[in-house]
Amino acid sequence: MSGPSSISFSALGARLQPPAVTALMAAALENPHVLSLAAGFTDTSTLPLREVGQVVADLAARDGRPEHLQYGTTLGRPGLRELLAARTATLDGLPAGAIPAAQTIVANGSQQILHAAAQVLCDAGDIVLVEQPTYFVFLDILAGLGARAVALPEHPDGSLDLAAISARLAALRAAGETRRIKAVYLQGYFANPSGASRTEAEKNGLATVLRDAGLIVPVIEDAAYRDLWFDEPWPARSVLALEAWREFPRLYLGTLTKPFASGLRVGYGHATDAAWFARLGWLKGHADFGTTNFNQAILERIVADRTLDDYLARTRPIYGGKRRRLHDALIHAGLRELGWSWIPPGGGLTMWVRGPRGLDTSTEAPLWRAAMEEGVLYVPGALCLAEPEAAGCVRLSFGVLNGAELDEAARRFTRAAARAGTAAVTG
Amino acid sequence: MSGPSSISFSALGARLQPPAVTALMAAALENPHVLSLAAGFTDTSTLPLREVGQVVADLAARDGRPEHLQYGTTLGRPGLRELLAARTATLDGLPAGAIPAAQTIVANGSQQILHAAAQVLCDAGDIVLVEQPTYFVFLDILAGLGARAVALPEHPDGSLDLAAISARLAALRAAGETRRIKAVYLQGYFANPSGASRTEAEKNGLATVLRDAGLIVPVIEDAAYRDLWFDEPWPARSVLALEAWREFPRLYLGTLTKPFASGLRVGYGHATDAAWFARLGWLKGHADFGTTNFNQAILERIVADRTLDDYLARTRPIYGGKRRRLHDALIHAGLRELGWSWIPPGGGLTMWVRGPRGLDTSTEAPLWRAAMEEGVLYVPGALCLAEPEAAGCVRLSFGVLNGAELDEAARRFTRAAARAGTAAVTG
Repeated sequence: MSGPSSISFSALGARLQPPAVTALMAAALENPHVLSLAAGFTDTSTLPLREVGQVVADLAARDGRPEHLQYGTTLGRPGLRELLAARTATLDGLPAGAIPAAQTIVANGSQQILHAAAQVLCDAGDIVLVEQPTYFVFLDILAGLGARAVALPEHPDGSLDLAAISARLAALRAAGETRRIKAVYLQGYFANPSGASRTEAEKNGLATVLRDAGLIVPVIEDAAYRDLWFDEPWPARSVLALEAWREFPRLYLGTLTKPFASGLRVGYGHATDAAWFARLGWLKGHADFGTTNFNQAILERIVADRTLDDYLARTRPIYGGKRRRLHDALIHAGLRELGWSWIPPGGGLTMWVRGPRGLDTSTEAPLWRAAMEEGVLYVPGALCLAEPEAAGCVRLSFGVLNGAELDEAARRFTRAAARAGTAAVTG
Repeated sequence: MSGPSSISFSALGARLQPPAVTALMAAALENPHVLSLAAGFTDTSTLPLREVGQVVADLAARDGRPEHLQYGTTLGRPGLRELLAARTATLDGLPAGAIPAAQTIVANGSQQILHAAAQVLCDAGDIVLVEQPTYFVFLDILAGLGARAVALPEHPDGSLDLAAISARLAALRAAGETRRIKAVYLQGYFANPSGASRTEAEKNGLATVLRDAGLIVPVIEDAAYRDLWFDEPWPARSVLALEAWREFPRLYLGTLTKPFASGLRVGYGHATDAAWFARLGWLKGHADFGTTNFNQAILERIVADRTLDDYLARTRPIYGGKRRRLHDALIHAGLRELGWSWIPPGGGLTMWVRGPRGLDTSTEAPLWRAAMEEGVLYVPGALCLAEPEAAGCVRLSFGVLNGAELDEAARRFTRAAARAGTAAVTG
């Protein structure tokens, strides 16, 4: 049915590229024995089969007129939006009602809101300030819009380098680019890929630097992994609650299903700016006029009756154990001795592992070829970077594999690193 | 949390407007006793509560490792895509495999694909050729993109006026607009709002007129209501199967859930052009990297074991009965005597009802005010029109209300029409 296309695409259509992970996934498919440290998924064996089945049965029993199988509204189920607004307010130590349900939107995963937020803010040539590293799909989204991701400089420990950020903003001003800066994108909690979280002092410092630069621009705090802590929640409040961000239009993104059941795909956003929020809803009206009502009804029950909290309490130790297992296995295999380093995260699903200075971790490099031969898949760090860095990094995910598989994947990765280190010296 | 926005939005963000139906919905909310002939929903009392509950229970029992609660892939579940490609091929009398599963995409409702298709084709100022009337949300989508909807002229009976279309295309060429024409959007089966279907001769004639004008442009056939026939399926094949359209890039849109359970939101598309199809997938990767896998797993079972076909066989007579009930009630109430006319559709959920020449049916008009006072809601025809028409039309939906409510709504609408007719003469 196909042939060469004669279609005249839009500017967006012409700019779109295959996702950055396409090559990785193809590589994985070619080798069925590969162990994947690449996919940022949860463990299928922990998924809440019983819980979801029970809720669906209860909905069927109670809802004689099954409105949960009917269309909902574009912004989401009113009851769920109330629960979500109250839940985030509690996490942020805010009084009940401080986050209005009326400015809460439910979506097919929080990424849908992230995509919409970027679309209503960014034209081609516009700039979004991002962490280094950052969520790689967001970099794809910005590239699709023709927008530029500009990195917020960080200290070697990953904390924000406020002086360098200030200098960077001054340089953008000198280049006449200030008006192109449309937003700041942060992951404050157990970020993908770094696993790092931001302190309140860091967030407040960033707000001050931005305000001093005259940049009262929208900020998006993506808190997708906030609920997925291992030993204790990250104590910092979000930009919704921090006084330093009060003047800024803010969008907070969360998900109910990433740490629960990704197959249900229910995310949400709270926006402080009425005009921005309205546009997210209007664009959602074009995209699908509302998230699957059935899934929202399931999640509404699961939040309301504390099934979600019980489930999270049971599964957090599992993911904490997986993180420890991968960390220990990498040390035991000798990766540190090869010049690699990492900060074990306190939550999330990913570790950001830094190789020897100058190491190429791309799919064109000896490390990748060695890893393919050993049978282990990683995400090359460059996919997560707005700007190149001297140190070659990789993202390793520990959510999917079981303990024995994590041990074996760590051994394979370390063998690949050893071979690539040799290749880099001799090649 | 809100105040006046200081945000500098993108061109898209600045163009976005509240959906056309916002005013209607607000009006409905203000009057709880209103009977709505506006919402194009199915009847909540017919929704497949038992069927969905059974499938979810079966999935839980059979799928010990619950992959249906895990992420799926961006394009959709392979098994479901196979079933959908085969199902459409059967409907179109094509051999098995004629529609490749590899060029089939699953989405959160077919509208998500429609939105994506428009985004990758249309820049501001571009043109899409549409039927008159057409699906009003698609007009919203085009307006958001800054694109222009240009009407395909029709005969008074609603069939395509090929000579007038040819003249229209010549006029666009004379105005230097040919290269701005990016797509043709058709609803071949029980269209929303007209309820009308297109014959193969009409579709083939349109292809010929386009080809003669040198316009081998993408065509989107939206077949959302193809399964919702009352007495017999509409016999015409889709553009996927018609030889006259072979040179054209084609996108066929269908939905599993509109006639089954809208709350599950699973739609699909088949594209013939590899480059166009790829971009739909890449954009879906930005929006949500895949439709809710849980819902796809449910629908895969429901299609595979013929639950969907059995359900459709049981519910078609219900919707056919509702259409007859509204039709009969409008006649009995005397609407025809007031100068109104309509063609009762053989499927779908909506009727296109034409008022006396020159009647204003907008929310600013006496008819709307009279309908509000009588307690009945309709969709003003202008919302569904790319270009104004002399005759004032309304869209009346019969999917939601029960028989007695349809009778009462028809009486209320007819009383409103009588009052508005008087007002138009005396006002």
